Amino acid sequence: MADNSKIDEVLSTLDENLPQSLDRLMEFLRIPSISTDPAYKDRVRQAADWLCAELASLGFEASVRDTPGHPMVVAHSQKGDRRPALFYGHYDVQPVDPLELWDRPPFEPEIQDTPNGKVIRGRGSSDDKGQLMTFVEAARAWKEIHGSLPSDLVLLFEGEEESGSPSLRPFLRENAAELRAGIAMICDTSLYADGRPAITTQLRGLYGDEIILRGADRDLHSGGFGGLAANPLQVLVDILSGIKDADGRITLPGFYDGVEELTEELRADWEALGFDAGEFLSRVGLKHPIGERGRTGLEMVWNRPTFEINGITGGYTGEGFKTVLPAEARAKVSFRLTGAQNPGKIRDSFRAYVRARVPADCAVEFQDHGASPASRMDISDPAFAAAKAALTEEWGREAAYIGAGGSIPIAGDFKEILGMDTMLIGFARDDDRIHSPNEKYDLESFAKGARSWVRILAALS
Amino acid sequence: MADNSKIDEVLSTLDENLPQSLDRLMEFLRIPSISTDPAYKDRVRQAADWLCAELASLGFEASVRDTPGHPMVVAHSQKGDRRPALFYGHYDVQPVDPLELWDRPPFEPEIQDTPNGKVIRGRGSSDDKGQLMTFVEAARAWKEIHGSLPSDLVLLFEGEEESGSPSLRPFLRENAAELRAGIAMICDTSLYADGRPAITTQLRGLYGDEIILRGADRDLHSGGFGGLAANPLQVLVDILSGIKDADGRITLPGFYDGVEELTEELRADWEALGFDAGEFLSRVGLKHPIGERGRTGLEMVWNRPTFEINGITGGYTGEGFKTVLPAEARAKVSFRLTGAQNPGKIRDSFRAYVRARVPADCAVEFQDHGASPASRMDISDPAFAAAKAALTEEWGREAAYIGAGGSIPIAGDFKEILGMDTMLIGFARDDDRIHSPNEKYDLESFAKGARSWVRILAALS
Repeated sequence: MADNSKIDEVLSTLDENLPQSLDRLMEFLRIPSISTDPAYKDRVRQAADWLCAELASLGFEASVRDTPGHPMVVAHSQKGDRRPALFYGHYDVQPVDPLELWDRPPFEPEIQDTPNGKVIRGRGSSDDKGQLMTFVEAARAWKEIHGSLPSDLVLLFEGEEESGSPSLRPFLRENAAELRAGIAMICDTSLYADGRPAITTQLRGLYGDEIILRGADRDLHSGGFGGLAANPLQVLVDILSGIKDADGRITLPGFYDGVEELTEELRADWEALGFDAGEFLSRVGLKHPIGERGRTGLEMVWNRPTFEINGITGGYTGEGFKTVLPAEARAKVSFRLTGAQNPGKIRDSFRAYVRARVPADCAVEFQDHGASPASRMDISDPAFAAAKAALTEEWGREAAYIGAGGSIPIAGDFKEILGMDTMLIGFARDDDRIHSPNEKYDLESFAKGARSWVRILAALS
Repeated sequence: MADNSKIDEVLSTLDENLPQSLDRLMEFLRIPSISTDPAYKDRVRQAADWLCAELASLGFEASVRDTPGHPMVVAHSQKGDRRPALFYGHYDVQPVDPLELWDRPPFEPEIQDTPNGKVIRGRGSSDDKGQLMTFVEAARAWKEIHGSLPSDLVLLFEGEEESGSPSLRPFLRENAAELRAGIAMICDTSLYADGRPAITTQLRGLYGDEIILRGADRDLHSGGFGGLAANPLQVLVDILSGIKDADGRITLPGFYDGVEELTEELRADWEALGFDAGEFLSRVGLKHPIGERGRTGLEMVWNRPTFEINGITGGYTGEGFKTVLPAEARAKVSFRLTGAQNPGKIRDSFRAYVRARVPADCAVEFQDHGASPASRMDISDPAFAAAKAALTEEWGREAAYIGAGGSIPIAGDFKEILGMDTMLIGFARDDDRIHSPNEKYDLESFAKGARSWVRILAALS
């Protein structure tokens, strides 16, 4: 069992050793582990080897494990008597182009002073090397004071997160017994907008589809055929326009089956966030929430399903004008899903709705773009309350359970393949410019992130 | 006054001299007068010079008249005591690419035997050199028998019809007194589908517009903003879908002002054509007329206004999928107009309708793509009945008054600038492949076309 009275000593050690922790992070950041570019294959492996060596030096039983793509790094601490926990991060990084928009070479990181405090500037500083190293440094300080690592930890570091994680699901399946734990922790998310610590407890699912409508066997001239012949673009807009009603509700039969209202606990947490939809939208040049009538802004993005048109093309779209009735029209659409909505049933309902509205002279074809259900963590698991309290203590303000409007497929994979819920805890900030030039990670995020993990590890003991 | 008893002599002369007429046409077709390609500028002028010389040799007072673009050829016969008539054609031709799809060089014309009879194969044979030469050869035979040309004829031949006629309107304005006549005749149209002779007496107008909708100041991720932020593509489809109701009628206020029902005379003529909408649509892979409820197929394409979506673009349209809410969406749309519909008023009504449906977080901009009213000829002018009777006699079947779903801007220009109605009379066929490789003109069209003009000239005397 960990000795919780030693927490303050571990935290002091972390603070004292921050310069050395940063040196190690800088060394890690200098390895250009770009997973999408085959030219960097050896550098990705170099990052895996570096990480594995770090973990082994701390006393983890660590190994680099081959996959058909880039390797995984897996590490175990000594066996204890606790419910094991799995920590996930990724050591690969995004490409750096456009290089000319960087103020300094992306793989020559440095600490910079900014009006908002010190930052670590460089590719991967926030996404995700800086974040995963908060956990590694927490474990290092823990060992220094306790003489041993926290027991029953499994660490899993992936090298393909930025290229779609093609090897992850097979790897989880093949190594399920080794990796299965009581709870998973993923450190790849952000603090809530105002810097408040947060645990993401629900993620929306996604179902994407493409409608391809075909009419005449060629583009027609609207002088000769307009008013007589079916126009696939008109058919398409009529279909798409009918999917939402005037209140912003989706009209597909059975669509809301499985959608759940917020619990009182989550509703209170979300209300306490003081989310201002107008202010949020103003950052992208908008002002007015346009979603379902009678829903709060956070419900709209986190807890309500949506229908979105992501792309339409058809007919003449170049300069000038052509009076054409196009032979074909296409739309890419997607639904964000919540609660227990069943993506397969929604696909069936959507396609039946479309087919029923295609006139005799048009043919419709669909192109599947994937489906995954929403993720909802079981926050009655005591690990959540423990982690929430630990975050609250470290950051000096109430930590919140929040949602996310997007999907993090890895959390879904952990649930589906390993049966684990995930605590998504991260310390990035919205202005970290991940995936963009001049990526940074706040020094505060790094230092307090590592301290947060010490407290969470103690609380989970 | 022409001596109508000599018609048969003129017709016999035409028939006897057909080989020489064809030789002249072949010489004309060998001049590659492609007006859109600056490399052929001298060849376009060569065609104008050739035509002017032909007309002068017949006794016309003919001249090549410079414009800022390619020249016009204008010719006058001797002054008589009749109401003068203007005949229009164009001596420029379409480009020939893709050249590899031609069975023989496009400017080396020849007479070919086909299962449907003899044809003149070559670029410009149908559009429009072959057609305009039917009139020139009619005049030549007329002179041979009568000793003089038909009086009071003005001939106008343009060299820019295939490049949008940029010089035509200024030329008509500057030479209005010289060109104004009692009636215009344009020989650039086709026989009705089954080979029945026809005079086109009405053309639909056109108003084209483009809607540009802008939302956020960047593309948004549907995970972060979906359900909360305005999606310009959704706004666009809702707007476009509302323009037609379930009966195919257009909902814009005042849209049908000026639309006219068919007269009994035209309704009878059109019914006699035996138009089969299903058969017509089957040529392009369709079957079912989809226009306004309660209208015949020919009404839908000739006498009813329409709304058409000609192109939409917005969001991600490449391979695969992106869960984007686009910053911008665009649609090119057009309305075909009939009767006395006022394009300016319809533009105002359309734009007001769109603006009223744009939410506060979107901005709309329009890009004008031109507007022209419908053309309706005054068929109570005796010239129409005279020409119709002449065509009926020549072709041995009842000539018809027909409409056209598209626009022929020149007819509108004659009306607007010179105050003349136009009889659109032509002998092309739907399978002539104008603007395409292997263009042809039926020998029967050429021979009977010239004979038709002899009869029409006699009838107009």
